[in-house]
This record gives sequence, C-alpha cells and structure tokens, in this order.
Amino acid sequence: MKKLINDPADVVSDALRGMALAHPELRVDHENRVVFRGDAPVRGKVGIVSGGGSGHEPMHGGFVGRGMLDAACAGEVFTSPVPDQMQAATAGVDGGAGVLHIVKNYTGDVMNFEMAAELVAAESGTEVATVVVDDDVAVTDSLYTAGRRGVGTTVLLEKIVGAAAEEGRPLAEVADLAKRVDDAGRSMGMALTSCTVPAAGTPTFELADDEMEIGIGIHGEPGRRRVKVAPAREVAEMLLEPILSDRDFTDGVICFVNGMGGTPLIELYVVHAEVAAILERSGIGIARSLVGPYMTSLEMAGCSVTLLQADDELLRLWDAPVVTPGLRWGA
Amino acid sequence: MKKLINDPADVVSDALRGMALAHPELRVDHENRVVFRGDAPVRGKVGIVSGGGSGHEPMHGGFVGRGMLDAACAGEVFTSPVPDQMQAATAGVDGGAGVLHIVKNYTGDVMNFEMAAELVAAESGTEVATVVVDDDVAVTDSLYTAGRRGVGTTVLLEKIVGAAAEEGRPLAEVADLAKRVDDAGRSMGMALTSCTVPAAGTPTFELADDEMEIGIGIHGEPGRRRVKVAPAREVAEMLLEPILSDRDFTDGVICFVNGMGGTPLIELYVVHAEVAAILERSGIGIARSLVGPYMTSLEMAGCSVTLLQADDELLRLWDAPVVTPGLRWGA
Repeated sequence: MKKLINDPADVVSDALRGMALAHPELRVDHENRVVFRGDAPVRGKVGIVSGGGSGHEPMHGGFVGRGMLDAACAGEVFTSPVPDQMQAATAGVDGGAGVLHIVKNYTGDVMNFEMAAELVAAESGTEVATVVVDDDVAVTDSLYTAGRRGVGTTVLLEKIVGAAAEEGRPLAEVADLAKRVDDAGRSMGMALTSCTVPAAGTPTFELADDEMEIGIGIHGEPGRRRVKVAPAREVAEMLLEPILSDRDFTDGVICFVNGMGGTPLIELYVVHAEVAAILERSGIGIARSLVGPYMTSLEMAGCSVTLLQADDELLRLWDAPVVTPGLRWGA
Repeated sequence: MKKLINDPADVVSDALRGMALAHPELRVDHENRVVFRGDAPVRGKVGIVSGGGSGHEPMHGGFVGRGMLDAACAGEVFTSPVPDQMQAATAGVDGGAGVLHIVKNYTGDVMNFEMAAELVAAESGTEVATVVVDDDVAVTDSLYTAGRRGVGTTVLLEKIVGAAAEEGRPLAEVADLAKRVDDAGRSMGMALTSCTVPAAGTPTFELADDEMEIGIGIHGEPGRRRVKVAPAREVAEMLLEPILSDRDFTDGVICFVNGMGGTPLIELYVVHAEVAAILERSGIGIARSLVGPYMTSLEMAGCSVTLLQADDELLRLWDAPVVTPGLRWGA
C-alpha cells in the first residue's frame, strides 16, 4: 500500500489537523471530528449538516462555509460517522431556525442520522428535517444500501440548499427544496482502478488491466457490469444512457463530471467534451458545468456523471456566492 | 494504459474542447491551442502569458482569468508549446502596456518563449519581459534543464504577479516583482508511482512496490534518490530539509502542498499537517496555505512542497481577487 499517511489508524485525525491548519476560517472539533464554519451557529439561519465516511474529499468537510454547509461530520474511511458526532454537529449549528440533515443513502448513514435527530429533539427540542439523497441509477439496492445510492447530486444539492438557507428561508422550504433537487438529479459512475482503504491495506476489488467497471459505487461497491476499457466517448455513452433512460431532461441542466480521485483533470475535460456532445445531440442544453474531483473514492481512477434538471430558481441558487475550501465563487 | 481518453493523439485538443465548454467565460483558440481570458486584451494592462506542456492541469490553462493569467499556451503532453502559439498568445493579450512571459525553466520552453518574444518584437513592437521560474532544489541541471527546474513556485508567482498586473502596474515593475517571487520560492517533490504519457503508452519510469522517488521532476525526471516508502511525517522531512537548507525562511511564508495528480486530497492534508509541524518547530509561521492538485503530472501519485517567503506586499497580492477555473476567491 503506497500512501502519504502515517499510521493507517490516524488518517482521519491527521487529515483533519491538516485541514484546520490550511483553513483557519473553519473551526474543527477534533474530538467529535466535526468541521464547522467559523461563525456557526448563525442566528436565525437554518443550519445545514452533512457528513459521511472519509475518503471522499473534498466532500463533505471541504464544502463547509458560507453558502453551503454549516458543519460536516467525518467518519472513518468509508464508514458512517456515529450519532454522537451528528448530534454535536447539529447542536453546534442550531441558530434557532432548525437544522437540515443531508444524508447520502447508505444504511449506516441513514440510521445514524435518524438516531442523532431523535437525540437532538429529545435533548434540546431542535427541529431537524432530513433529506436522503438517492440519485445513483446504476443499481437498486446494493451491498450498503436499500434503494439507490447517494452520489454526485449530493454536491450540487449541498450548494443549492446551502444558498437557500443563507437567504434566510425557513426549514420547511429548505427541506422541500432539498427533496426537489434530489428528485431532479441522476448519476452514474465508473472505475478504471480500485482503491485501497488504509486500514485494510489491500485493494477493495480487482480489475484486470484491460477492464473497467461501469456503475461503480463510491466505496468500490460492484456496479452493473465489467467491460473492456473503451475510449472516452464510449464511456460517456455508457454513463449517460442509463441516466437519460431514467428521467426526462430538457434544456438547462447542470452537468457535473466528477473525478474519483486518481484520474487527472485533463481526462475529466476529455470526458466532459464527450458528455456535452451527447447532450447536444439529445437536445439538452447545459446551463452550468462542474468538472473536477469533488466526491472522490480515495485514489480510485474513474469518473461519474451527474445531470441535474435545473430551472431559474435552482440556477440562481447555484450561482449564489459560496466560500468553502472545495467550491468558491462570487464572494 | 488505462485512461479516460479517445485517441492518444487527440488528448490535448479534446481536453481543450472540454475546457471551453466548461468555462464559457474563457475563450479558447483551438487552432493555436491558447486559452484566453474572455475580455483579452485588457486595455492598458500588462498582459501575463504562460504555458508549457500539457498534463499538469489545472496549470496553466486553469489559471487564466481576472487576477492571474491573460493567456496560456498548451503544448502536447509534457512537451513545450511552439513559438507560434506563444506569439498568438502574446499578440492576443497585448493591451498596449507590454506582456510578461512566465516560463518554467525547461530548455524547450525557455528557447521557444525567447523565439516568440523576438518574433513579436519584430512584427508588432510589443515589449515583452520574461521571468524564468527555477525553484526546484532537488537537482542542478537535469535531463531537460540547464539550472534548476521550475515547479510549484510557478503557481504562486502567476497568482501574485497576475494581481499586480490587474492593479495596472507597469511592465518593469511587474517583471521585477516576478523575479522577486521566484527568488523567494523553493520547492521539492516526490513520487509514489510513475505516470504514463498517452502517446508513449507505458510508464515513464518504474518504481518498486516499496519504493518512492525523492526529488522527482514534474515529468517523471529522476530526482535525488530512491528510498523505501516511509510515513508522511518522514516524507515531509525529506522534502523540507533541502528547502530549508537552501534558503533562510522566517515567519510569514506561503506554504503550498501540491498533489501530483493521483494522490487524493485526504493524503495531501495529512502531509500539510506534518509540514506545518516541522515549520512550527523551526520557528517559521505559515501566513497562507494552499493544499491541492494545482500542478500535476498526469496520474502520478505523490506531492511537492513549496515555501514562498512572503511579506506584506506579497500577501496582499496573494489575497487579491482571482477568478480562474483553478484558483478563485474574493470576487
């Protein structure tokens, strides 16, 4: 295992130390492993909390800041945070207007966030709403999920919903918007190589030198099928076909080509060009693009494509200022 | 070779198509393979041009925009752009106040930028100044360089000098500042794995499963030595020791932990924590941090560390607004 780490057991705490040092505008609770925006809780604003296993950086800690998340809980690599962490995060961002939990649909995450919401309600009466993101068209049910997995739409949802909360909208509206965004997004991923969880020390799965996995999950969970390595334009088709079969998309989508961690940006731009060409042939105009490694799977090589059907409101919220380590513009 | 590309011969042009589609605020000259900021040339402003081989994304094309570069020339992968490209870039950003060429110290780049400057001067009389970045302490002279190689300081220099040009400072001042920044920066890199140039199809070099290369260049050029894989805190020491031996650093540095492309962000934060700990023990305070894959070597796994001795002026220029695909803040 070749990794720039110290003891595999310390990866998450070491990385959180580095994050705190690199981003003094954030506040890291090292005991609970929660990344807070520096000015949390923001009085009168709905608090937005997410979290999940580590190994997907910059998601979620790198999306904490003005206009996006108020706090993110970091679990062990590819392992859900525990309810105590989520409770600490929720309490720490409660500005009196309630808190939204953004949860990717993995059994552990869903269960733990539910438990945390109950603990918080019982102890402090804080109102908590929850959105479960389940946008991955690759599989229904999987190793770690009942229903579809939550993948790339999560990044877009955190940005859009974070902007709405920043505007001071009430919890019910913010929660409704979150569900609307989840409903409007579809994703599909693929991998050229596996990744290695530090504590395991060996690759999560094996792929032959001439094979790729289509429909992979962000923890290396099996996808739909293994096929021979193919040119980017065929990969783009294999990812878009199931997305476009699953939902109608019209003009004005947000198109997100995400890197899995080990794939360089030059390749992601090649994929984006192919994705855009297919969308153009399908009469689907791209309103906004996001290309880069935003929701990774450690050093896995591969990519995912997310389409989000936007409208004027969603685009306005997408364009609104955001100041986080991972996404930043307009301020 | 597992890559998300089409024909290896088309990687650069395909990626530029993707870039143009993802960033409509830029203007891509596909014939000359030059990325321009959309409003170039900016009247009365010194134009800032850089460029180099592709495969280092987001450098340089991803640093084009307000507050940084006015244009960037994209060569073939790991190959210098040709003088015609640099001439087109220079002509396209000439707003009447002259143009600065930022050149990484590789023989081909230096020669071609020199030739372009002469062509431009002869044809249009545009005044061109040049800064050659040579901050890599790993080697003196190398396979592709007379003198030290130009690496991580390039990113910091493009940002700082771009901000000075945006303020309307004259060419001589901007060029002096560029030389001052180059003089203040030192870098050292390492690799855990090789990378594969698409046109070659096989890894640039071989590294055993338990080996890493210390002092690697950004094209996989040999470094100082091969050693057994070590924990991040030892890697941080191996990178910082030659940097701190080469120049005196005092309080107030910009500390840049750069990913080589295949190393995930979680590991870069682990390295940053170790680098910061060493600097603290050495009495060198970090004024600003930058952590991420900004100057990559395709899918190489590894990192580099750059220290830049800043002062109030450099920090003010570093903090100034920048709006590019790769670096963006304050606007």
